[in-house]
Amino acid sequence: MTENELEVYFNNSPSLGDDMHDMAKDLWPICRSITGNGARETLSYIKRQIPELAIHSIPSGTKVFDWEIPDEWIIRSAYIKDKSGKKIIDMMENNLHIVGYSEPIDEWMSLEKLNKYLYSLPDQPNAIPYITSYYERRWGFCLTHIQRQSLKQGDYHVVIDSEIKPGVLNYADVVIPGLSKKEVMLSTYICHPSMANNELSGPIVTTMLAKWIASIENPFYTYRIIFIPETIGSIAYLSRHLQYLKDYVVAGYNITCIGDERCYSYLPSRNGKTLSDRAALHALKYVDPNFKIYTWLDRGSDERQYCSPGVDLPIATIMRSKYGKYPEYHTSLDDLSLITSDGLKGGFMAIQKAIKIIEKNRIYKTIIKCEPQLGRRGLYPTLSKKHSTDSVKIMMNFISYCDGSLDLLHISEAIGENFESILPIVEVLLENSIIEELAYE
Amino acid sequence: MTENELEVYFNNSPSLGDDMHDMAKDLWPICRSITGNGARETLSYIKRQIPELAIHSIPSGTKVFDWEIPDEWIIRSAYIKDKSGKKIIDMMENNLHIVGYSEPIDEWMSLEKLNKYLYSLPDQPNAIPYITSYYERRWGFCLTHIQRQSLKQGDYHVVIDSEIKPGVLNYADVVIPGLSKKEVMLSTYICHPSMANNELSGPIVTTMLAKWIASIENPFYTYRIIFIPETIGSIAYLSRHLQYLKDYVVAGYNITCIGDERCYSYLPSRNGKTLSDRAALHALKYVDPNFKIYTWLDRGSDERQYCSPGVDLPIATIMRSKYGKYPEYHTSLDDLSLITSDGLKGGFMAIQKAIKIIEKNRIYKTIIKCEPQLGRRGLYPTLSKKHSTDSVKIMMNFISYCDGSLDLLHISEAIGENFESILPIVEVLLENSIIEELAYE
Amino acid sequence: MTENELEVYFNNSPSLGDDMHDMAKDLWPICRSITGNGARETLSYIKRQIPELAIHSIPSGTKVFDWEIPDEWIIRSAYIKDKSGKKIIDMMENNLHIVGYSEPIDEWMSLEKLNKYLYSLPDQPNAIPYITSYYERRWGFCLTHIQRQSLKQGDYHVVIDSEIKPGVLNYADVVIPGLSKKEVMLSTYICHPSMANNELSGPIVTTMLAKWIASIENPFYTYRIIFIPETIGSIAYLSRHLQYLKDYVVAGYNITCIGDERCYSYLPSRNGKTLSDRAALHALKYVDPNFKIYTWLDRGSDERQYCSPGVDLPIATIMRSKYGKYPEYHTSLDDLSLITSDGLKGGFMAIQKAIKIIEKNRIYKTIIKCEPQLGRRGLYPTLSKKHSTDSVKIMMNFISYCDGSLDLLHISEAIGENFESILPIVEVLLENSIIEELAYE
Repeated sequence: MTENELEVYFNNSPSLGDDMHDMAKDLWPICRSITGNGARETLSYIKRQIPELAIHSIPSGTKVFDWEIPDEWIIRSAYIKDKSGKKIIDMMENNLHIVGYSEPIDEWMSLEKLNKYLYSLPDQPNAIPYITSYYERRWGFCLTHIQRQSLKQGDYHVVIDSEIKPGVLNYADVVIPGLSKKEVMLSTYICHPSMANNELSGPIVTTMLAKWIASIENPFYTYRIIFIPETIGSIAYLSRHLQYLKDYVVAGYNITCIGDERCYSYLPSRNGKTLSDRAALHALKYVDPNFKIYTWLDRGSDERQYCSPGVDLPIATIMRSKYGKYPEYHTSLDDLSLITSDGLKGGFMAIQKAIKIIEKNRIYKTIIKCEPQLGRRGLYPTLSKKHSTDSVKIMMNFISYCDGSLDLLHISEAIGENFESILPIVEVLLENSIIEELAYE
Repeated sequence: MTENELEVYFNNSPSLGDDMHDMAKDLWPICRSITGNGARETLSYIKRQIPELAIHSIPSGTKVFDWEIPDEWIIRSAYIKDKSGKKIIDMMENNLHIVGYSEPIDEWMSLEKLNKYLYSLPDQPNAIPYITSYYERRWGFCLTHIQRQSLKQGDYHVVIDSEIKPGVLNYADVVIPGLSKKEVMLSTYICHPSMANNELSGPIVTTMLAKWIASIENPFYTYRIIFIPETIGSIAYLSRHLQYLKDYVVAGYNITCIGDERCYSYLPSRNGKTLSDRAALHALKYVDPNFKIYTWLDRGSDERQYCSPGVDLPIATIMRSKYGKYPEYHTSLDDLSLITSDGLKGGFMAIQKAIKIIEKNRIYKTIIKCEPQLGRRGLYPTLSKKHSTDSVKIMMNFISYCDGSLDLLHISEAIGENFESILPIVEVLLENSIIEELAYE
Repeated sequence: MTENELEVYFNNSPSLGDDMHDMAKDLWPICRSITGNGARETLSYIKRQIPELAIHSIPSGTKVFDWEIPDEWIIRSAYIKDKSGKKIIDMMENNLHIVGYSEPIDEWMSLEKLNKYLYSLPDQPNAIPYITSYYERRWGFCLTHIQRQSLKQGDYHVVIDSEIKPGVLNYADVVIPGLSKKEVMLSTYICHPSMANNELSGPIVTTMLAKWIASIENPFYTYRIIFIPETIGSIAYLSRHLQYLKDYVVAGYNITCIGDERCYSYLPSRNGKTLSDRAALHALKYVDPNFKIYTWLDRGSDERQYCSPGVDLPIATIMRSKYGKYPEYHTSLDDLSLITSDGLKGGFMAIQKAIKIIEKNRIYKTIIKCEPQLGRRGLYPTLSKKHSTDSVKIMMNFISYCDGSLDLLHISEAIGENFESILPIVEVLLENSIIEELAYE
């Protein structure tokens, strides 16, 4: 695509949403976990979209802060047969059936014993729950409560063909250099099996954001985009890069649950007043004034690590329906019908808007004492009538706050205007030598 | 008048309002603009009231920050005659008929052509609009929409006997010295033709305030009172005095729209928390608790210059009905019936109250540790009964905040009492050596 | 009692309230004033409860800041007889009958003259008012309005057998040493005659708090507990200890009106944001969310001295029904039926809770970067299901704020949890070397 075509593509084009939904279909069947082939396959798929992506591995047993990289989980097949030899549960049909990190087993057992290893949701009888046991050896199967209730007394043949053994944990990152060494960081996770809003929407929207950022000519900031398994991955990443990130990251977002159409949501950084928070709040106000505001106490993803005491990166979260707050969360109902082309595109554009704000945010200062004479520059109506200055009111309001202490985002809020609508005014004022940009890193 | 008579006169006497309304009648017919004879006549009239007033002039073409002093506009006559020779519009009848800074013309033209130079208000068919074109050469006439609709096809003789040529811009100021070199600044404009609330009320109330201030024995602050054409005048004034004003002005008000009876209004300085703002808010709360509070975004007079970035003088505005917010604004309906003796007096007293607060605001500190024993000084009831201390409660509350960090105005707000009602208490406490005044500039 | 028995006793045991109400009955008959035998008897009674209590005296005439220790008032008897020789008013029946600090008199007088020396409350015809005249020589009797209206014309024999002469003012204090020299200070007054909520509840609850504090093993803070006559006593105490108290007192409460059951009340220190204020607000929120919040302008007891400018001790007040705000205040209706066993116990426990918060408040900091792996320590569910982390949510929230800048009380408020419920979590985290305590004085 040409530069212009790219700009059109990334600016609300219908194909943008469709392309993301297609990516979701591609990634749907893969059985991801925090380690293993599923995560690797997913990262390889993303690398085909972003060739500069670097895929890294850390050996099992490596100490990362208070944690240790776990053994790798290889899962080949998992099913339960009844006496007639019929597979009544098979992870080939839905990879949520197998409890994550299940140990191998090949055993006949009674329904009574089997029941101790089955997980279902009486309140959501149609849903298969999503369950894992990363750090304690277990095995188990998940199924709908309806199916569970239909199981008959008798013996069952339980087979899990898995291995848990030393290997590696994989993650990937790409750094897109900008004019400044200061960085904007985007992070998403690639460790859940077949779930749509609470898994695929994150890496897909992040991949598309990476492609959009790569298409920006001469970005001001350097952009760091990270694909990791949740929790253990962000801890591992921080253990390798903490000081650099603390020195250079000025803003960023954790990207998750960004594909449905029900609402927009904001979860603050721990600090709550970082540039990321201010940009997210301003962007969402203009994307959908009814967006939901959560608090730090509602957190639940990698901001837990990024904003932990002593780490304190300025990472906030912009979501559609927040994890834990929609009924399909962590069940088989969080499927490809929950996320939509429009839902993904809306999520993409909300985060894109926040990033654009961060990218363009600067401090300007008037060069001129008192109001400039806009009239002789053709910027002000020369005939003074009632209301004749309404049209330049925004420009005058903007200038009145350009005192070198407030950034563009502060001024947008002070004068009640959309950040983006101020940008052309800034251009005109710079061209006319009415304001100057203060040094900015 | 004797000192006592002056005090009575300036303290809510009915003649105060009447005298101001008489001044309005005197000044009404003058055709003011930002330059020229009308402004000079007006300043001369004011100088007769305030003999110490100094009238200054700046030559056309002088650079003042981003602006240039315009040529002077001399207007001798302006009328339109119909074919029968009858003057159908004549600025002698109402000087709003002529567009400010109109070029000379003496020409017959069809109604069709003439219409391009006529201004009227379809929504206010009885009102002649007020229109100017200072910085672009034009000519035009303003009339009521009713009259406009009555004009018949045919030719009209249009005559404007005006000149626009190098001259001067005039303004005036007076500095009334006080104990301190620190200044309180009052500014008003003298550049609109016959309009009452949005022109005459400002210089008239300001003139009366100057006379009141001149009658104060040993004022603490030095008072600077400025009469200027709006915008170009304040810019010119600042270009001549900026650093001194930044160094010495501690508070002040722009005075405009201060003569009707409908409401009181407050417009903050850009900073919003200056002494001027605090004093205005406190004064208006006790003058009329229903006063309207505007924001910096609603500004529209010389505070635009005084509070501009890098100028940042502490200038707020106390008004009656604010410019742009009453239907008669910038039309012939803003006439002498809109401002009243009571309206002007109320406006005078609201600003006077704010100035009194500024003049008397100090920081006091208790000399005594713990509460003083007011009883032995006859300041506290010696018989302790229920409610027996109510009468000294205000005094005790005041003392309890005299810690040397809060000024009198802060304490008035903290204890919920009218600033003026605290002053006699301060006197008593000073006399009894219970508090001391901290050094104040 | 053994240590365990003491802990049970001071922790909501029914006998705690009963014992306090019994103390009230013991102290009820004593005719206290700011000096004299009543105050001394009261202090002696308290010393039997707290043997370490030191009783001090200051001679009449001693200068204490702006005040002077008054002469001592000795009152032996006071009555009025009618012509038939019948005592119609006798302070033996109720010591509120005599105006505090009444001069001696032995005189026959008409009802007309007598009436000038009688005080009653027309609005509360059943109540004897409480009246004093410490600093102006007077005499007088208080009686119910009903009795007053029943007095018949004729002569009355008025006898007050009193002396006002140089003596001493008494007060008492006890310092219970802790690990730190920093102090928590409790102050109450012992100068009112027979009133229950607005007198006895204060010294009684304070006495019980002193006994509880003495039973704490190795308290962190040093506790200073003061029994003084109101106003003159706190001024005298401050005049003797001001600099030390300013250097060492980190928190404290004035204790008064703490025995009825109608409500809980909070009155801030002048500063309003001290540790005492924060602890009181947190404690009361969990004791009774409907507690009443007063302002500094509602003050009326010794906080007037403790928080006066230049003294500025961090003293707040936790009360039940506040002085001046309940109808029985300063009358004979404030009697032993107004304060109850439950009322006193509730008051005790509210202040005890605030003190426990102050005693345990510390700053903690995570030792670990990123979240700790609670699972391998048995502190986190190893099976990850929907809602499986709810049980450790409080712990995780707590850790997420342990950044070394917020104390335990700040964090309790930030995460919306009762301070006391955080303490076991702190223990576990310290044991597991997840957090460390920062140095604290």
